[in-house]
Amino acid sequence: RRRGIPEAILAEGKTPAEVAALTATAVETTGRALVTRADADDAAAIRTAIEDRELDDGTDTGDPIDATVDHDERTGTVVVHAGDFERPALDATVAVVAAGTADAAVAGEAAVVAREIGATVDRVDDVGVANLDRILDQRDRIREADAVVVAAGREGALPTVVAGLVAAPVIALPVSTGYGVGGEGVAALEGALQSCSVLTTVNVDAGFVAGAQAGLIARAVDAAGRD
Amino acid sequence: RRRGIPEAILAEGKTPAEVAALTATAVETTGRALVTRADADDAAAIRTAIEDRELDDGTDTGDPIDATVDHDERTGTVVVHAGDFERPALDATVAVVAAGTADAAVAGEAAVVAREIGATVDRVDDVGVANLDRILDQRDRIREADAVVVAAGREGALPTVVAGLVAAPVIALPVSTGYGVGGEGVAALEGALQSCSVLTTVNVDAGFVAGAQAGLIARAVDAAGRD
Amino acid sequence: RRRGIPEAILAEGKTPAEVAALTATAVETTGRALVTRADADDAAAIRTAIEDRELDDGTDTGDPIDATVDHDERTGTVVVHAGDFERPALDATVAVVAAGTADAAVAGEAAVVAREIGATVDRVDDVGVANLDRILDQRDRIREADAVVVAAGREGALPTVVAGLVAAPVIALPVSTGYGVGGEGVAALEGALQSCSVLTTVNVDAGFVAGAQAGLIARAVDAAGRD
Amino acid sequence: RRRGIPEAILAEGKTPAEVAALTATAVETTGRALVTRADADDAAAIRTAIEDRELDDGTDTGDPIDATVDHDERTGTVVVHAGDFERPALDATVAVVAAGTADAAVAGEAAVVAREIGATVDRVDDVGVANLDRILDQRDRIREADAVVVAAGREGALPTVVAGLVAAPVIALPVSTGYGVGGEGVAALEGALQSCSVLTTVNVDAGFVAGAQAGLIARAVDAAGRD
Amino acid sequence: RRRGIPEAILAEGKTPAEVAALTATAVETTGRALVTRADADDAAAIRTAIEDRELDDGTDTGDPIDATVDHDERTGTVVVHAGDFERPALDATVAVVAAGTADAAVAGEAAVVAREIGATVDRVDDVGVANLDRILDQRDRIREADAVVVAAGREGALPTVVAGLVAAPVIALPVSTGYGVGGEGVAALEGALQSCSVLTTVNVDAGFVAGAQAGLIARAVDAAGRD
Amino acid sequence: RRRGIPEAILAEGKTPAEVAALTATAVETTGRALVTRADADDAAAIRTAIEDRELDDGTDTGDPIDATVDHDERTGTVVVHAGDFERPALDATVAVVAAGTADAAVAGEAAVVAREIGATVDRVDDVGVANLDRILDQRDRIREADAVVVAAGREGALPTVVAGLVAAPVIALPVSTGYGVGGEGVAALEGALQSCSVLTTVNVDAGFVAGAQAGLIARAVDAAGRD
Amino acid sequence: RRRGIPEAILAEGKTPAEVAALTATAVETTGRALVTRADADDAAAIRTAIEDRELDDGTDTGDPIDATVDHDERTGTVVVHAGDFERPALDATVAVVAAGTADAAVAGEAAVVAREIGATVDRVDDVGVANLDRILDQRDRIREADAVVVAAGREGALPTVVAGLVAAPVIALPVSTGYGVGGEGVAALEGALQSCSVLTTVNVDAGFVAGAQAGLIARAVDAAGRD
Amino acid sequence: RRRGIPEAILAEGKTPAEVAALTATAVETTGRALVTRADADDAAAIRTAIEDRELDDGTDTGDPIDATVDHDERTGTVVVHAGDFERPALDATVAVVAAGTADAAVAGEAAVVAREIGATVDRVDDVGVANLDRILDQRDRIREADAVVVAAGREGALPTVVAGLVAAPVIALPVSTGYGVGGEGVAALEGALQSCSVLTTVNVDAGFVAGAQAGLIARAVDAAGRD
Ligand SMILES: Nc1ncnc2c1ncn2[C@@H]1O[C@H](COP(=O)(O)O)[C@@H](O)[C@H]1O
Ligand SMILES: Nc1ncnc2c1ncn2[C@@H]1O[C@H](COP(=O)(O)O)[C@@H](O)[C@H]1O
Ligand SMILES: Nc1ncnc2c1ncn2[C@@H]1O[C@H](COP(=O)(O)O)[C@@H](O)[C@H]1O
Ligand SMILES: Nc1ncnc2c1ncn2[C@@H]1O[C@H](COP(=O)(O)O)[C@@H](O)[C@H]1O
Ligand SMILES: [Mg+2]
Ligand SMILES: [Mg+2]
Ligand SMILES: [Mg+2]
Ligand SMILES: [Mg+2]
Ligand SMILES: [Mg+2]
Ligand SMILES: [Mg+2]
Ligand SMILES: [Mg+2]
Ligand SMILES: [Mg+2]
Repeated sequence: RRRGIPEAILAEGKTPAEVAALTATAVETTGRALVTRADADDAAAIRTAIEDRELDDGTDTGDPIDATVDHDERTGTVVVHAGDFERPALDATVAVVAAGTADAAVAGEAAVVAREIGATVDRVDDVGVANLDRILDQRDRIREADAVVVAAGREGALPTVVAGLVAAPVIALPVSTGYGVGGEGVAALEGALQSCSVLTTVNVDAGFVAGAQAGLIARAVDAAGRD
Repeated sequence: RRRGIPEAILAEGKTPAEVAALTATAVETTGRALVTRADADDAAAIRTAIEDRELDDGTDTGDPIDATVDHDERTGTVVVHAGDFERPALDATVAVVAAGTADAAVAGEAAVVAREIGATVDRVDDVGVANLDRILDQRDRIREADAVVVAAGREGALPTVVAGLVAAPVIALPVSTGYGVGGEGVAALEGALQSCSVLTTVNVDAGFVAGAQAGLIARAVDAAGRD
Repeated sequence: RRRGIPEAILAEGKTPAEVAALTATAVETTGRALVTRADADDAAAIRTAIEDRELDDGTDTGDPIDATVDHDERTGTVVVHAGDFERPALDATVAVVAAGTADAAVAGEAAVVAREIGATVDRVDDVGVANLDRILDQRDRIREADAVVVAAGREGALPTVVAGLVAAPVIALPVSTGYGVGGEGVAALEGALQSCSVLTTVNVDAGFVAGAQAGLIARAVDAAGRD
Repeated sequence: RRRGIPEAILAEGKTPAEVAALTATAVETTGRALVTRADADDAAAIRTAIEDRELDDGTDTGDPIDATVDHDERTGTVVVHAGDFERPALDATVAVVAAGTADAAVAGEAAVVAREIGATVDRVDDVGVANLDRILDQRDRIREADAVVVAAGREGALPTVVAGLVAAPVIALPVSTGYGVGGEGVAALEGALQSCSVLTTVNVDAGFVAGAQAGLIARAVDAAGRD
Repeated sequence: RRRGIPEAILAEGKTPAEVAALTATAVETTGRALVTRADADDAAAIRTAIEDRELDDGTDTGDPIDATVDHDERTGTVVVHAGDFERPALDATVAVVAAGTADAAVAGEAAVVAREIGATVDRVDDVGVANLDRILDQRDRIREADAVVVAAGREGALPTVVAGLVAAPVIALPVSTGYGVGGEGVAALEGALQSCSVLTTVNVDAGFVAGAQAGLIARAVDAAGRD
Repeated sequence: RRRGIPEAILAEGKTPAEVAALTATAVETTGRALVTRADADDAAAIRTAIEDRELDDGTDTGDPIDATVDHDERTGTVVVHAGDFERPALDATVAVVAAGTADAAVAGEAAVVAREIGATVDRVDDVGVANLDRILDQRDRIREADAVVVAAGREGALPTVVAGLVAAPVIALPVSTGYGVGGEGVAALEGALQSCSVLTTVNVDAGFVAGAQAGLIARAVDAAGRD
Repeated sequence: RRRGIPEAILAEGKTPAEVAALTATAVETTGRALVTRADADDAAAIRTAIEDRELDDGTDTGDPIDATVDHDERTGTVVVHAGDFERPALDATVAVVAAGTADAAVAGEAAVVAREIGATVDRVDDVGVANLDRILDQRDRIREADAVVVAAGREGALPTVVAGLVAAPVIALPVSTGYGVGGEGVAALEGALQSCSVLTTVNVDAGFVAGAQAGLIARAVDAAGRD
Repeated sequence: RRRGIPEAILAEGKTPAEVAALTATAVETTGRALVTRADADDAAAIRTAIEDRELDDGTDTGDPIDATVDHDERTGTVVVHAGDFERPALDATVAVVAAGTADAAVAGEAAVVAREIGATVDRVDDVGVANLDRILDQRDRIREADAVVVAAGREGALPTVVAGLVAAPVIALPVSTGYGVGGEGVAALEGALQSCSVLTTVNVDAGFVAGAQAGLIARAVDAAGRD
């Protein structure tokens, strides 16, 4: 694909069999597949479809595909690489920063995508603004990155604070935590849209999009460095 | 009044004559009046009503009231004290912290009310979170206060940060800045409601309410100290 | 912790094992833990983690922690105190007032937190405004408190009425009752934001925050009294 | 008209000439007209149209109509009665209760309509719930009414309180006061919809509708009494 | 109770045991109880509590209460009358009109309450506006009523049409049908608030409130007729 | 243009000079222009640009364009036809039905567009559902049309009623009347989206879109008839 | 029925027995029934009701109805035709275009209805705008249709693009895909309402309405062609 | 400043004197200032403050500042450069794409900022998706850019289409056009959040933020190329 973003399949709202079939096709045609929001059943169906080549209805579709299947439970992602697939290795780093434990899964989805695009990914966790020392301690490390994804739920103050600390482009990733008015990530998204610092945002829980955009910036940086 | 909060008249949506009449009555019955959201016309009408005792329709209502009229243009407040009125002097401090210039007027309304209730008021301005050094520099000063009002518009991250730095109760005061989705103070209010730090909030631009609540806390602190 | 607020773990959205691990850590590092929105499974996991020191995966992590585990089913809170932990005893009272039965659980969460911070807590239940005599009968009792939390769902008129009756600071605690437009606590929250009486508010069902803020006021009052 | 509700013309969004023409037609065909949300220009145009019979474009349309024109500035209503029109005199009373000064104009619109339908109207003003004594003092008077309209803005707690005090049907009339979230009457309307007491509601500022419904109840009561 | 409205218990959100206990208490103290939104379990628990006097935990609380228990599955209501309870018989009729099958349950709740208050209730079903002949055919029948409740979901046009056909007061009862934007009764409620005909409204699915208000009008009519 | 819809210029938010320039260009390139939401200044500027060929800054741009300029004040539309432009004459009729006076302007915009596309347009005014006889009286006339646009504000019940009376496709045109919750056309739009009858809708006040879609249906009908 | 739209039963929110009874009645009275949002249980109940004539409670209601039952799992529709029912065969085509796999079920519902009305239906799938070549490739095919339904979720850009490519009337069918702000079809619906191309819309997931309106246009076109 | 973003002053909501003072300070301390949403009065006040060094109240503040003042009326921006200020010249290009005339001003604001940061800016106007040929014609040109800002109002489909055509990171810039539901840029913003293509977004009309983020990407690309 033109942008180097892996073919992505959103498992949510699809049956395991549908997910598996789409995954197998993606691997066969592009050498790779990335499944998001996948549960254990989806992962099992994918393994069967890759390794046994058996459809849900029992039809055997031929020889197993030579591919590795990596399922990360925490983030709900499955990454499949054909045996001969080689992930690009970009000379660029993406930092993925998360405010709290509840933000880690969504941040993880972003990290997986950026890594598949070829960036080096640096995870910085548990740096919520209610305790400023934590984020200040990580400042220098985050400044190393060429693009920064900042995941935060509830009031979502972290992306604004981080964008005040670094020179690289920052992408806010609002997370669907919080209850009551402004809950489920709405306050965090609006906080990103209203930020006093320069940053852009993706929708609530859209880890895939945030990670992919960071990956595109990493690609641009890598390409410029090669010239 | 039971709580020591001055009789308050919201000028918005009233004619200058109505505002002036309500103000005169408040001064005569309680020795004091506080007018919020007053413009120049309201202030002029109040002066006339206090000093000339002339109604809008020309009727002269008797001798001038012995009172001082203080109009603060920036905050749109008018404070009137009868000659013999003595403002309480509480042994307690309220800090009023503001993120930026646009938040200063609303913060000022809060400060006026807290002062009228009798608190010592400490104003801390221009400490937005996009530049963390500014707020960190004022940390010790804010820690002196018995109650803290934090005014902030746009993404409203400041109250969360301040409540992470001090031990006193913090009251968020969202300000109607910002445009687009979450604008006009909505993101800032939702940010306060979703805050990871412990704090309570008032409605957008409700400087009067934030200042009055801080004043009530100051009264409680002062009373405990006198025992 | 600086503000005397117990380390709080929101069980909702975490597995019992995660809740238990976070609780054990909090007890070991701070001598205490407060878990909110915990169900029976969470409580059982916490007991195991404290008393058996066995992780979810079977690993034994050493000697039992010397601690008491109190689970209150009604409010969904679990309080854990290390054997040598001594709860502060503040010379200050927090009244927790609730309109109806449906508000009692959320009010209870507020009460638990205020008590952990060290305040004497006075519960006043079943005083909805549809029958004014009930609240008027309790007026003198509520006036004894240094801070008042008022929990109310549906139209949420009670905080406004109570704030008209007492001199102490009032914190509205909107509860997620009611169906249709303005339901799930939204009308109650907006009623607090629009109140004609001076009060501040927390988000819908945020008993923890309301109780903690009341506790912070109690701490300030207690400290002033000691001087 | 079948229900005894006067032909009503909403002046807002119409030119004075349009308002005047519709008014003249209503008077000629039904003996009466009620114009709501009329300003001074609308009232002047109506007088011209009734008394001079001159159209906006100068055409003279004949002899003046024998009719009285009553313009109430406060409520923005104009009532026109043909010389031979006799307003019904129902044996029933409508109480129109208002929380504060800002609610009086909208309450007045309701009162005018109920009176035109033929009810005896009893106005009870300035009984906001922040000071319960005021409403309790008026309790017996309000209990005399056959139907009760309760106008209230901001948090709109008054209709709930009144419906807890009387046996007659109560109609909430939310008023567009208040700023910020829940402002412009939204919290007051939602408060009516969520009320713990039995009552029905009309839209924000819909004084005409509240007064007309109260008038319909008065008609039903009057008719039953005549049998 | 002052208004003749039966003590009502909302079963939703309560356990069957809680519902049963509240019901028994209401019957013992007021001679009657009305439970709304009750399912089969609630009804069974009520029967046990009335007939066996056995608590959930096995305690026997004495002799059975002499009372009848009527459970209507369709509307989810349970009506309990003590043996000596006599329902008032008002000389007044309430029509309960419903647009479609989906509106019938909510309409039924309104009917039960109005009947308990003592009105004669006339049900008119299946008269949606997409086929005008149906409602026109029932016009004369509806005109017999002293108060009219009109239940309608989706676009909620029926209350407006009915209020244009009758002289009695009309109460709109929006029903939570419809999907997408304006679904779950929101469009129907807003349609009632915006109606071109004079009517008042209750919240979505608030059959109890609509029926009770109609019952209060019936009481007023009945009382006037007795004089 | 492919669909036969005239080049349309939305005057709102443009200066008269900009409107005039765009109009002149459209006439020169397509032989026709349709300006919507135009005020007197826009119309004057258009006339100057067509007849004097003088730009805002005084530059004379050559010979006058041979074209007629029709300004309809009520609907705010300006139609310009080059001298040699011939409007199509389709063998198909569009009925444009409006509930009340306030809906007439928006309905008029729809009518102008449908007419420009070539349909015969039949206007049916003042047939609001609060008085069913009016719409029933016009039933046969509306049934003559090949497509029906139904404009209605406030509760927007009319499109649902009309679609229950005719066989042709109905297009709802919600109008921005009404105040309070659901006002400014929102309830009317949601009523169309939730309609129990089959119909499609356009946005609030989008007379141009409704008329153009009706015109496209007329074109399809006309074309089929020619085969 | 006047408009040729089959009697439709929405299975959602009804029990299989209710669905089956309504279906049997429709077939007996109109020769046909269309059930939407039906699951396997609904389909089974329908078969039983048609073939066995047995009610849910065991009552046998007579001889089987001579009818065919077609259940389409993907779209959740059941079509029942009496043995002697003959579907109209209109000389008109409806194109049903869908952006992605997730939109196919809703698009399918539209297709079934249009087909039952008698149109020839042409399905064009998987032509989302993120890859413009796909839709451009199908342009000529879509241009053959007399009316076009375009189903799209998430940002819903496809209806705008298609309406820019064809001359026939376009009906947008927003689909409830997407998460976060604007999710569940809301952005897609608003996109249709704001479209720069001329089109009308139905509510989110309202495949039945979109298909029926397209069918009505097909009927008009067919009728014109017959003259 | 760390990120190379010019000190920016939002003129909206400030008096010309305030704007001018802030501008002068920025130029003196950073060598440059960028004022957005400035009108003619703001520009005049800035010129006076730079060239005459006279404060609003008449005080002369010394020698004129050696600086150039560029006011762009269309975009409402004022750029001030001190005589010795040299704008960076990055080896990177930002494309700024706009759907229609109404989007040009907001797009222009983005372009000014990106240029000030040092990027080469390529403007591509009038490429709305209702006519796909226009955007397809510009495809190769847009592909030259290192970052792409896409401004679009109403249904906001253009960013999704552009992100499907290019490999560089795309930033959506929703514009506040459109009326009715989803108007004022809301549908366009939600369309960006729901996009099927990978892109990030800024708030409605936030040209400054979009341009600055694109400039940050350009800086990263330029820096990588220099290594
Ligand atoms: N978690 C996710 N959030 C948002 N977009 C996603 C996600 N996962 C995949 N996508 C996008 O959705 C497209 C696939 O959607 P689908 O065809 O429904 O599987 C992919 O091409 C991605 O652009
Ligand atoms: N700026 C303000 N914001 C919120 N409430 C206010 C404000 N100023 C006055 N009030 C409150 O509004 C009441 C006066 O309302 P009114 O009778 O309309 O003047 C006072 O008693 C205060 O409690
Ligand atoms: N019921 C609650 N409502 C709101 N905030 C809570 C609640 N319980 C705990 N918290 C806060 O959330 C933080 C813990 O979040 P977490 O790390 O997700 O467990 C605590 O430090 C508290 O400040
Ligand atoms: N203030 C008002 N609020 C709501 N409805 C009104 C009001 N005044 C008049 N009406 C209603 O609006 C109808 C007249 O609307 P119009 O034809 O626009 O003047 C009347 O028949 C009344 O039912
Ligand atoms: Mg799945
Ligand atoms: Mg004023
Ligand atoms: Mg759990
Ligand atoms: Mg007027
Ligand atoms: Mg239950
Ligand atoms: Mg203009
Ligand atoms: Mg079912
Ligand atoms: Mg200015």
